[in-house]
Amino acid sequence: MMNTPLTLVSMLERAEKYFPKKYVVSRTSSGIARISYKEIGSRTRALASVLERLGVKRGERVGTLAWNHHRHLEAYFAIPCMGAVLHTINIRLSEDHLIYIINHAEDKVLLIDEDIVPLINKIRDKLMTVKAFIVMTDKETLPSSALDPVFSYEQLIEEGNGAYSFAADLDENEPAGMCFTSATTGKPKGVVYTHRGIYLHSLTLGLNDMMGLSESDVCMPVVPMFHVNAWGTPFAATWFGSTQVLPGPYFTPKLLAELIDSEQVTLTAGVPTIWNGLLKELEQGDYDTSSLRAILCGGSAAPKSMIKTFETKYNIPFIVAYGMTETTPLVTLSKLKSYQDHLTEAESLEIRSKQGLVAPGLEIKVINERGEIKPDGKEMGELLIRGPWIADEYYHDDRTQETFRDGWLHSGDIATIDEEGNIKLVDRTKDLVKSGGEWISSVDLENALMAHEAVFEAAIIAVPSVKWQERPVACVVLKAEYMKAVTKDDFIQFLAPQFAKWWLPDDVIFMDEIPKTSVGKFLKRALRDKLKDYRVSTNE
Amino acid sequence: MMNTPLTLVSMLERAEKYFPKKYVVSRTSSGIARISYKEIGSRTRALASVLERLGVKRGERVGTLAWNHHRHLEAYFAIPCMGAVLHTINIRLSEDHLIYIINHAEDKVLLIDEDIVPLINKIRDKLMTVKAFIVMTDKETLPSSALDPVFSYEQLIEEGNGAYSFAADLDENEPAGMCFTSATTGKPKGVVYTHRGIYLHSLTLGLNDMMGLSESDVCMPVVPMFHVNAWGTPFAATWFGSTQVLPGPYFTPKLLAELIDSEQVTLTAGVPTIWNGLLKELEQGDYDTSSLRAILCGGSAAPKSMIKTFETKYNIPFIVAYGMTETTPLVTLSKLKSYQDHLTEAESLEIRSKQGLVAPGLEIKVINERGEIKPDGKEMGELLIRGPWIADEYYHDDRTQETFRDGWLHSGDIATIDEEGNIKLVDRTKDLVKSGGEWISSVDLENALMAHEAVFEAAIIAVPSVKWQERPVACVVLKAEYMKAVTKDDFIQFLAPQFAKWWLPDDVIFMDEIPKTSVGKFLKRALRDKLKDYRVSTNE
Repeated sequence: MMNTPLTLVSMLERAEKYFPKKYVVSRTSSGIARISYKEIGSRTRALASVLERLGVKRGERVGTLAWNHHRHLEAYFAIPCMGAVLHTINIRLSEDHLIYIINHAEDKVLLIDEDIVPLINKIRDKLMTVKAFIVMTDKETLPSSALDPVFSYEQLIEEGNGAYSFAADLDENEPAGMCFTSATTGKPKGVVYTHRGIYLHSLTLGLNDMMGLSESDVCMPVVPMFHVNAWGTPFAATWFGSTQVLPGPYFTPKLLAELIDSEQVTLTAGVPTIWNGLLKELEQGDYDTSSLRAILCGGSAAPKSMIKTFETKYNIPFIVAYGMTETTPLVTLSKLKSYQDHLTEAESLEIRSKQGLVAPGLEIKVINERGEIKPDGKEMGELLIRGPWIADEYYHDDRTQETFRDGWLHSGDIATIDEEGNIKLVDRTKDLVKSGGEWISSVDLENALMAHEAVFEAAIIAVPSVKWQERPVACVVLKAEYMKAVTKDDFIQFLAPQFAKWWLPDDVIFMDEIPKTSVGKFLKRALRDKLKDYRVSTNE
Repeated sequence: MMNTPLTLVSMLERAEKYFPKKYVVSRTSSGIARISYKEIGSRTRALASVLERLGVKRGERVGTLAWNHHRHLEAYFAIPCMGAVLHTINIRLSEDHLIYIINHAEDKVLLIDEDIVPLINKIRDKLMTVKAFIVMTDKETLPSSALDPVFSYEQLIEEGNGAYSFAADLDENEPAGMCFTSATTGKPKGVVYTHRGIYLHSLTLGLNDMMGLSESDVCMPVVPMFHVNAWGTPFAATWFGSTQVLPGPYFTPKLLAELIDSEQVTLTAGVPTIWNGLLKELEQGDYDTSSLRAILCGGSAAPKSMIKTFETKYNIPFIVAYGMTETTPLVTLSKLKSYQDHLTEAESLEIRSKQGLVAPGLEIKVINERGEIKPDGKEMGELLIRGPWIADEYYHDDRTQETFRDGWLHSGDIATIDEEGNIKLVDRTKDLVKSGGEWISSVDLENALMAHEAVFEAAIIAVPSVKWQERPVACVVLKAEYMKAVTKDDFIQFLAPQFAKWWLPDDVIFMDEIPKTSVGKFLKRALRDKLKDYRVSTNE
């Protein structure tokens, strides 16, 4: 067979050649624009030519600090296709972490959204490798800053070569992308994606048994493009010629609902907190969401109640998937098998709320101190993952050896696996409640609590216990209308029929808000810090 | 990223682990059996262990002479996964060609269906490298033959190790399969498939924009497993956990219709002559074909009338695809783009009867002596193909350099390409009618003739012409009920409104049958031989 390399170049070229009329709907700070793949193609080539002129060399990193819009998409292809590395940077990181990762990645150029300029301006003197700043704005004049040299993205595109030819000798194992993931303690850790990894991952997104992304889709990634390549959808959607809707900066649930309605979005992807917000919006407004063939949900567990509401009240299929920064990210996706069509609604929901079956091409195993666990849906162990789009190291980082061992990625996620092969995440290794030598899944308890009509959000954390080592405590945010209408005991009584007695939280603490990470997940570390002096009084 | 190799081992293991209850419906000479993937898995491992015991080494070829059934499927995985090469042999070849390819491939072991034993018995003394014969039969006693040593497949499986571990260090670029393709002149030419090529091709079969093969499919390859791996469906269907229906030896249209009905087949694949037969059967019998979500048709052009009848009369979507032995085989597949939903039925049929859009991952171009042709759907040129599942040579064969040049496979197919990127095959290079310095597509004329109500089959061939170099002549097989009811002139008048005057055949010759190749395509070489003394009398 020909040794044609699996690179992003052939993906972009397919969109240019066969889908020039298809387009990207891009919301920027100045409004909504439609840009065809023909334009995206020549603008992408122009951007690559300009970066080359600015001195970016093969294998060097170019950072982006940007929302989901067409310019970011152009950078997604221009940088890897010229042989450089697309380093997407989480704009919600602290200044310290931003400085660390830009220096650690040795970014040569930064592409920055207009509203992020003040942040970068503040830390500019600490950035040791950046030789040029490019501001991604529609406006004729750049925002004032002390960045130097600083360029206008549109001006550069105008000066660039729209017929630029990409690196002809790209090897599929060359780095194409890079993303940092926050660590429990210490600095963020960098993950490098190869052309081959992204290519195979993109194919997987098109499989009928996975997302089934196709030309006929209108795909709206709500998950940020600065977070694991927006789950790879911009790459795959461009390759397959799907319409893309990129919702831009500071979007609200209202805006998302409007875009779904006006652009006839068929597929959208994001974390549960986004869908929680969308549900509320759908309850208030009058939107046509009939075009949606699936909402894809990952990042953390989706409460069954949410799945059920989307499906029964709004007739929108809700699909749970799982992955992490180290896995490009798609690892599993939850669907019933064809012979499970006789299940009751409750049984079906039970399976479909799990993280699901591993993608073709990857291997998983779940182990605890006794070895590989029983596929009984009950025994718990750590999820290990292996395959061609799974990282094998952290970029120049000693922490590599903790996570990548014996040829497997040790995910740090605690899971069960059922006899059909579906995994269910029950916790992060560090969030698991270890009580009396047994494990209690904080996620299971949280999901059960979230199904209570009074609960807006709920998190379970482990607090130290002299007698049991650790005990679970519930942190609950009530819906406004239930404030002071429910008590701790109401919740314990609600949970009691569903769990073993020793699983029940020792306390329920009401809060105004659960602290969250920069990508919208519960920040349990902050909760634990907050409650570090708390002691459980019962059962001791 | 991890450098996990793309091999068939992970594909089989997925079926064993996650789809042990799913099954293969296998028709053999003794009836229909259902074998689960759990059984297929251990039987496949047992077969590999036995082949190893018989002395088959890494990289060596093992030949199969067999119909579509579960034992052949087991060989499909056992041989490549142990590191050897699955050489599927066309059982319809002449004795000379069989001897040539078995010796040229240096097959070490042959797996033979019971009914093929007499054929191999006859040529056994001419097979220079075969060290063992295995007969794939249900029966307790083997058919009598002078093959030596000869083994019973089922006996070997019983003795084998069902827990055999496959080669752990397989490289994705190692050969996995081999298939010979007939040449216009001379001996058949061998094509070798790598693990990587088959793996990527299988992923492509699962793409929503291509076949969309999935776990919920019941897939019946009618295309023989000795012909380009039955278009790769056995590999992909096993990987994705689809149910497979393998229709066995000497099937009839009636049997196919019955299997579609009883097994609720969702997807089936084969050549137009098969579907012509099925149509006739559906007209006679009373079958439930509502489970079919698509008939996939390749090998040669499907007449529009056939597509239309399947779709309007039987409500079965009919999808045209294109490939060849050298391309694993899927290259293009025909579907409307999402923005073409306003087309009339005739316009839609016009596009959908083309060979369609190139698969993600492959590149094509169409060239003639003036360079790349215009994408106007009219200009003709030779189709060139490139990509990771395209062969780059014929196995130990000097004819490699004619076909594989400048990094492209020169397909020998003459095509047009339209502005949407759809290719349409208009001829084989060798079948094109070159008249007065212009090209006439024999395929276009044939398709037009096939739409005539009196025509069962029609072929156009070029005959020598002093004045024009070549002129087209039609060879027509009439439906029984139209014998002597139509004349040559009727056909010329039927074609006249559809083509330029100089395209019209100079003669129409009625025949009882069009000679066909071993895979059911028109054998135009035989027609030309038959008519070699024929001279066109008109227009000279």
